Amino acid sequence: MDHVALAVRDLQAAVRVFETLGLRCAGMEEVPSEEVRVAFLSAGQVVLELVEPTSEHGSVARFLASRGEGVHHVALRVPDLRQSLERAAAAGLAVVPPAPRSGARGSQVAFLHPKTTHGVLIELVEHTDTV
Amino acid sequence: MDHVALAVRDLQAAVRVFETLGLRCAGMEEVPSEEVRVAFLSAGQVVLELVEPTSEHGSVARFLASRGEGVHHVALRVPDLRQSLERAAAAGLAVVPPAPRSGARGSQVAFLHPKTTHGVLIELVEHTDTV
Repeated sequence: MDHVALAVRDLQAAVRVFETLGLRCAGMEEVPSEEVRVAFLSAGQVVLELVEPTSEHGSVARFLASRGEGVHHVALRVPDLRQSLERAAAAGLAVVPPAPRSGARGSQVAFLHPKTTHGVLIELVEHTDTV
Repeated sequence: MDHVALAVRDLQAAVRVFETLGLRCAGMEEVPSEEVRVAFLSAGQVVLELVEPTSEHGSVARFLASRGEGVHHVALRVPDLRQSLERAAAAGLAVVPPAPRSGARGSQVAFLHPKTTHGVLIELVEHTDTV
């Protein structure tokens, strides 16, 4: 597992909650293309991402409006994204276009729609900067 | 992070989906006290738990009836559960009684209600069998 992302309304308040539970904030970043601000909290080998919308129009803002705060997606690391996408499509899983797309820190990512992955939006991540 | 648990209606179908994505099923277990059947999938250092109700009366069955399939809880490892619970309560987080309670494999666990943890049910886990 690479990371778990929570959609939250108040980033600072959410960071405080998870710091209370022993997680450490490793950084924050604004992602204008997604209209969100993100805090990265270290939880062992996995990162807990807290994602707050910066406008009312992005997909995270729409998620909050319709579903409220909660888990937005779960990201799994894969060694070969194109191969994983081929296998997923062959198994009937719904790949969200465009796929692959560019992710954070030079990664390539793709999303699988929750309707075919048991209710959870799955992000597949290939870290291309690892040797 | 210790594990992420998904509530699913069909355990075998859900296992196949996540095996397609490269995860490996490390075992299954029926937990009569919780009225569920659980499959454990290795996702690096974290376990993805797939949880299917075995009756219509348990809390996971009620979750599925009201929310549908999706992330049921996120579990964080803590070194000292009682200390974590004291800090959580002092910070105004809602601890679900009884806490602590016995978890899987000799662990002690406690749950924090999603209303004070930004929409996600948080399980705190202290593994007491580690040296």
